[in-house]
Amino acid sequence: MRTIDLNCDLGESFGNYKCGMDEEILPYITSANIACGFHASDPLIMQKTVRLAKENQVHIGAHPGFQDLAGFGRRNMSLPPAEITAIIEYQIGALNAFCAANDVRLQHVKPHGALYNMAAKDPVIADAICEGIAAVDPDLILLGPAKSQLILSAEKNNLRAAREVFADRAYEEDGSLVARSKPGAVISDRKEALARVIQMVKYGTVTAITGREIEVEADSICIHGDNPAALVFAKSIREALQAEGITPEPMKEVIMK
Amino acid sequence: MRTIDLNCDLGESFGNYKCGMDEEILPYITSANIACGFHASDPLIMQKTVRLAKENQVHIGAHPGFQDLAGFGRRNMSLPPAEITAIIEYQIGALNAFCAANDVRLQHVKPHGALYNMAAKDPVIADAICEGIAAVDPDLILLGPAKSQLILSAEKNNLRAAREVFADRAYEEDGSLVARSKPGAVISDRKEALARVIQMVKYGTVTAITGREIEVEADSICIHGDNPAALVFAKSIREALQAEGITPEPMKEVIMK
Amino acid sequence: MRTIDLNCDLGESFGNYKCGMDEEILPYITSANIACGFHASDPLIMQKTVRLAKENQVHIGAHPGFQDLAGFGRRNMSLPPAEITAIIEYQIGALNAFCAANDVRLQHVKPHGALYNMAAKDPVIADAICEGIAAVDPDLILLGPAKSQLILSAEKNNLRAAREVFADRAYEEDGSLVARSKPGAVISDRKEALARVIQMVKYGTVTAITGREIEVEADSICIHGDNPAALVFAKSIREALQAEGITPEPMKEVIMK
Amino acid sequence: MRTIDLNCDLGESFGNYKCGMDEEILPYITSANIACGFHASDPLIMQKTVRLAKENQVHIGAHPGFQDLAGFGRRNMSLPPAEITAIIEYQIGALNAFCAANDVRLQHVKPHGALYNMAAKDPVIADAICEGIAAVDPDLILLGPAKSQLILSAEKNNLRAAREVFADRAYEEDGSLVARSKPGAVISDRKEALARVIQMVKYGTVTAITGREIEVEADSICIHGDNPAALVFAKSIREALQAEGITPEPMKEVIMK
Repeated sequence: MRTIDLNCDLGESFGNYKCGMDEEILPYITSANIACGFHASDPLIMQKTVRLAKENQVHIGAHPGFQDLAGFGRRNMSLPPAEITAIIEYQIGALNAFCAANDVRLQHVKPHGALYNMAAKDPVIADAICEGIAAVDPDLILLGPAKSQLILSAEKNNLRAAREVFADRAYEEDGSLVARSKPGAVISDRKEALARVIQMVKYGTVTAITGREIEVEADSICIHGDNPAALVFAKSIREALQAEGITPEPMKEVIMK
Repeated sequence: MRTIDLNCDLGESFGNYKCGMDEEILPYITSANIACGFHASDPLIMQKTVRLAKENQVHIGAHPGFQDLAGFGRRNMSLPPAEITAIIEYQIGALNAFCAANDVRLQHVKPHGALYNMAAKDPVIADAICEGIAAVDPDLILLGPAKSQLILSAEKNNLRAAREVFADRAYEEDGSLVARSKPGAVISDRKEALARVIQMVKYGTVTAITGREIEVEADSICIHGDNPAALVFAKSIREALQAEGITPEPMKEVIMK
Repeated sequence: MRTIDLNCDLGESFGNYKCGMDEEILPYITSANIACGFHASDPLIMQKTVRLAKENQVHIGAHPGFQDLAGFGRRNMSLPPAEITAIIEYQIGALNAFCAANDVRLQHVKPHGALYNMAAKDPVIADAICEGIAAVDPDLILLGPAKSQLILSAEKNNLRAAREVFADRAYEEDGSLVARSKPGAVISDRKEALARVIQMVKYGTVTAITGREIEVEADSICIHGDNPAALVFAKSIREALQAEGITPEPMKEVIMK
Repeated sequence: MRTIDLNCDLGESFGNYKCGMDEEILPYITSANIACGFHASDPLIMQKTVRLAKENQVHIGAHPGFQDLAGFGRRNMSLPPAEITAIIEYQIGALNAFCAANDVRLQHVKPHGALYNMAAKDPVIADAICEGIAAVDPDLILLGPAKSQLILSAEKNNLRAAREVFADRAYEEDGSLVARSKPGAVISDRKEALARVIQMVKYGTVTAITGREIEVEADSICIHGDNPAALVFAKSIREALQAEGITPEPMKEVIMK
């Protein structure tokens, strides 16, 4: 039986500022990437989000980013690799404290925003991240884009990796995402997006933007939960998968099969 | 045989800013309170400081404070108890990641600056701190001022506590420190300070500012390491203790006896 | 002809985080208190908010607060008076740059949150604030609660002051606001709140929580604009005032009469 | 009579952290670039530094940088041009408040660190900076590296520009600085550095790293004041200039001739 993880970024509010629809999206996902206070969130929100994920039996991952609240971690920053390793370790540890306090185990780590995008292409940054994860806890799973430097680096560092795919994004022939600045980068047609997800999960292939069919291995689908339309789409994805006999399960289970 | 812990705040540099003489003070102490990025430090410095402490066989504690870099955590802030618990958990977790990465075990937690002073007197704040420590790891030791609300709260929360005393500070009759704003609060005479330390450790008593001798139980002596004179004094304390047959040992060992 | 200023806090978003309904409230107010990046906002949002206020012919004031984004400036912090003066000067200057860039003149300064509440009661903090305002530009108006230390301090520092009143808050006999923790502190009945506003502006009196009628001089009414109900209420206040022949005008004009 | 400005970065301490030898370097310089709280400094330190510069009759410039205290503004960050303009305006305004409070006039703006280096080469960033300066106060002087995009952009934006040269850095044939990563980038021989300064100021030429003599126009020399050796060198430069009949004067005067 085919299984798939559904992951979503959670806990991105900050102090007085609300962001995301965490409570509403939780029933549709199996893994939560929880912000760690660098690009978003604060200790109280991390505490609350870990509790909420646990109550919904959703598995927990750290979602570390650049220390850039004003830019939500979406701006490239030039950090030395040793500093990237250190900020990864720091943020995993911080989130892990709330996991310990709530008696749940941290499942995975997914880098956020600019750090994620930079690491997908740059092996030095990917290694800096994976070394940090492995140093803190070699049982953690690295969640990164399929066919990226992050996945290669996880293997190099003896970390388990979960490969994520995107329902609403076009792919280049090499399996990387088409840059948002290019036309056709975002799949806005719902039905097309759903059909692509099913194809990726069931057959391990996707039609690249060039029209050529490429192979892509998917352990997890990235779900958005920051607006009502995203919630509706998340529900549709879940239903479409189940209609095809594909069961949502935490990535921990998916990658064991 | 009498033993005593010698603790010192470490790792309080930040980015480009240097602070403290960490490498020089390490040979004289048995436990280090390492800043966690809220009142001072950053991930790279925490990484380096944990390594340095380990190399010197000095035991490691978290030194969490208010999130106030501009004020070095020395300014009172009014946080709800749940938020104090959360910032304690966050900071312990963050430091713990570097301990895990360096394969050492976190020994203790000592609140920093304004948080330490507020918690010494306010049972609500003391409880918020001790609940955070207990939630993350009930084996951690709370390091706080002898006869303070922090020590009482540690007992209430089933945490082991280590009671620290100050060589260079005068005491009120109730065992609390004389406020720095009052005359006579600081003992500037070196010989007097050394004699007081010996008396506190060896006989469990100290002469309060009123002239009355009071009881004070000491598991640890707070050492400063931020200027050359402090280093000289740290060396004197260590020698004076050893001359009296008192052996410096990490607080973990001291409180087991 | 009686006139009154209607002021509202604006520009409290931050980076990716949205807060407030700035565009919607602007048509109802005459003066905007614009956050300066310490408790909320960032340079891009300040730039945009100044432009927006100018387009709506709303007068601009600085809304400086404690440097505490995580707490939205609502947590008491113990800063030395000299530092309070310095953070006031810094924030006024920062906002003033955007006024200069948009060719408008800064009208007033209203301290935010915990700083506002502390200064209302503490003459040392009130002086620290007013000295900062006077040092940067003695033509700026201090906007503070009627009958507070802030208003007294403005006079002492030769600053013009505008006294603000609250439609939805109960008053003590001394003219101070009833603490939110006490029963009856907030007037939730809309009609009652409107009647109180009219009484304060037209007759210069208000019924204190004890039942006694006290004098209160009002130059400005504090309006909220952070939710749809607040917008409706702002509209009602404006209409009720105009029905009584009271004209909304910027505080600069109001206090000249 | 030939004149030259001597500029130095000042006021880069932060809270409890000390950095630089501001009081010692002031007698040797004519213009101070004062940090504005983004890459270093805080309101109290800005207040103090402006006073100190005024007392020493040193002219004042803003030294705005990226909002990155942990990286001291030395790490490249990818900000949209509109945001760069906004952070420049904000920081100029903030420093300007302390100038107003001390009754001195802001003379110039010199971008800091990574922002300076990026703007030297990238016309989009240079324009974003110069547009911000011109919007706040078109009388401000842009201080930037000779032959850089910053100088070109100042002209484009009708700003006066002062061109700075470096005593201790090698130049490429196009007048740009040799990257620090390349051999020979730093001139460590004191006598050679002094000779180069004299040549640049007196004859408007310098020997590029290729051996070819190139033209370079110098209005200001960048002086360091962060360690005792830098102080000695600053003194030597000043003496060497005066021995050649070159008078140190604020850039405002230098560029009028």
